[in-house]
Amino acid sequence: MSTDNTTETAEASTTDTESKCGASEARSASEASGEAASTSEAETSTDTSSSKCGGSTTDTSSESKCGASTSDSSSSSKCGASSSDDEEEVGATVDDFDADPGRLIAVGLGPGQPEGMTTRAKKALADAEHIVGYTTYIDLVPDEITDEADDIYSTPMCGEVSRTEEAIDRALAGNDVAIVGSGDPNVYALAGLALEILESKGGTASAVDFEVVPGVPAAQSCGARLGAPLVNDTVSVSLSDHLTPMEEIESRLHAIAPEGFTIAIYNPWSRKRRENFQRCCEILLEHRDEDTPVGIVHGASRDDEATHITDLGTLPELGEEDIIDMTTTIIVGNEDTYVWDDRMVTPRGYETKYDY
Amino acid sequence: MSTDNTTETAEASTTDTESKCGASEARSASEASGEAASTSEAETSTDTSSSKCGGSTTDTSSESKCGASTSDSSSSSKCGASSSDDEEEVGATVDDFDADPGRLIAVGLGPGQPEGMTTRAKKALADAEHIVGYTTYIDLVPDEITDEADDIYSTPMCGEVSRTEEAIDRALAGNDVAIVGSGDPNVYALAGLALEILESKGGTASAVDFEVVPGVPAAQSCGARLGAPLVNDTVSVSLSDHLTPMEEIESRLHAIAPEGFTIAIYNPWSRKRRENFQRCCEILLEHRDEDTPVGIVHGASRDDEATHITDLGTLPELGEEDIIDMTTTIIVGNEDTYVWDDRMVTPRGYETKYDY
Repeated sequence: MSTDNTTETAEASTTDTESKCGASEARSASEASGEAASTSEAETSTDTSSSKCGGSTTDTSSESKCGASTSDSSSSSKCGASSSDDEEEVGATVDDFDADPGRLIAVGLGPGQPEGMTTRAKKALADAEHIVGYTTYIDLVPDEITDEADDIYSTPMCGEVSRTEEAIDRALAGNDVAIVGSGDPNVYALAGLALEILESKGGTASAVDFEVVPGVPAAQSCGARLGAPLVNDTVSVSLSDHLTPMEEIESRLHAIAPEGFTIAIYNPWSRKRRENFQRCCEILLEHRDEDTPVGIVHGASRDDEATHITDLGTLPELGEEDIIDMTTTIIVGNEDTYVWDDRMVTPRGYETKYDY
Repeated sequence: MSTDNTTETAEASTTDTESKCGASEARSASEASGEAASTSEAETSTDTSSSKCGGSTTDTSSESKCGASTSDSSSSSKCGASSSDDEEEVGATVDDFDADPGRLIAVGLGPGQPEGMTTRAKKALADAEHIVGYTTYIDLVPDEITDEADDIYSTPMCGEVSRTEEAIDRALAGNDVAIVGSGDPNVYALAGLALEILESKGGTASAVDFEVVPGVPAAQSCGARLGAPLVNDTVSVSLSDHLTPMEEIESRLHAIAPEGFTIAIYNPWSRKRRENFQRCCEILLEHRDEDTPVGIVHGASRDDEATHITDLGTLPELGEEDIIDMTTTIIVGNEDTYVWDDRMVTPRGYETKYDY
């Protein structure tokens, strides 16, 4: 696990980031970064061994109506495959499934703990025959829901691509499947990957009645903990360069920093790319005052939860502090943002119209 | 009402925008734009007449522990006060309240219908003695919650400033108060205004144990309806120039359009400022291809709900179509966004690492 902890990916660590504002206290840093390690380390055989579908050709007649996969490799993710030499191959296609497709729904759990879930999300999970997700997030789903599911497919770490394909294969095989993640499925998360893989398999979104159930994103969960830092135009930017080149990230930071946006920074730090955080601080300081308020939320609702309000000039010094790691989201204020009574406040502009 | 419909404000119409992805079907366009008109039209006496607190000096001994206000004007919002001549004056200050303060919590209802609420939001409202909000959103709170509250303070239209002050006065008077809005309290909403007014009254956030309960923002609610358009770095920008000068809005659009951001456009249109939408389209087209996918979500979950996927080149022609009004959110894709099976998909970048 220690080696797994040394790496992460954009989506995975953001999935992790998504959960940290209200993550399960039972969740340990190693579990968190374990998922974060998902596409950067060779995956264990957990996927295949626990697979009810897709990767296993021996279960095609099982009661869980799983479909055939033409290749075991389909559920054995090459984590962090960074060269064509170990690209992941998609296994089953729609032609491998005889049954009428079931449903596929991507469900956002929100902050992470059950009370952060919407009623609609709980109902969608309760209606699903199969629930697929990273073990840490499956553990956040209330027992009364998981106990009623025909099958739960979870991977303890690694493999969001293989896990997503597994969910799709199960839906194509006729099961009603929910794939879960914390936060919102549209925020650095799996809704897009699900549609991309579904298309690659020759399927269609409409055939599996693909639906996304939104959840509260980390930016809003963490903004709430800081007060009201995000009530005006806002940008969400991830510092992970695993799937986006750092030069593009830097260009985006240069573009937004001079404007009046508040900024929610996802994936600010990892053991493998500490320099991205420092580079981000340098760019922001080129355009914004050193006294610009900055809110840091680390591992919210976890044993090591910490919320800290500082300023942009001090932020670089905190890069090596415990409060900034891969479970942290950072919110940078705009030129109007101020700190009052330990809260960050970004005025909406009413003070220009009203006297209060 | 028809005149109210002709105007809106950033926060108010965004509060409205927030609700349209999953708004109550009982909610009519006029109700929606009625709230939207809140700070642009002289307010009726509804606030004062229905006020249990703040603006009324006759209720200070009522069982709802309402505090004194030194001025009736405190709950009579001058909607859209745009000059110092008719600025709103804050009424009661902390010195006017003898009781120990109660609690003040800003609760986001999410998409708008009860099933879009989180369990935490429902619990916060159930625990509140007073619930304050725009009538349309109060109506979205389950009856079992509102029936249990000591008092509900709602305004049918107009007055988010006076309504917010009312909520604060009630908390300062010793009541546990929840102020509600759709979407998230941090997204163009009332969390910031509540802290600003609280400070202006000489109060502190800690004294009323101020808390924000996040909800699902409109960008995520609408993104979910379109598929997966927002899975990479994203900007939220409002086109309302009521509280933000149009030149600043244009500068922000020029800054983000050349970068790889997906863009969630709030408040794209109102009868009073139709030109902002056309100007936004012109700026985006200066930097992005005409075939850039654009998703339009209008009045979701309402009788007139409509979701339409088009391209940036066609968008300007739709400015006068019914689908684009003050209940619409527009999502503009980035250079990688594509349309497949009636869904918008913004790749996260996995295709560069995996073969699927």
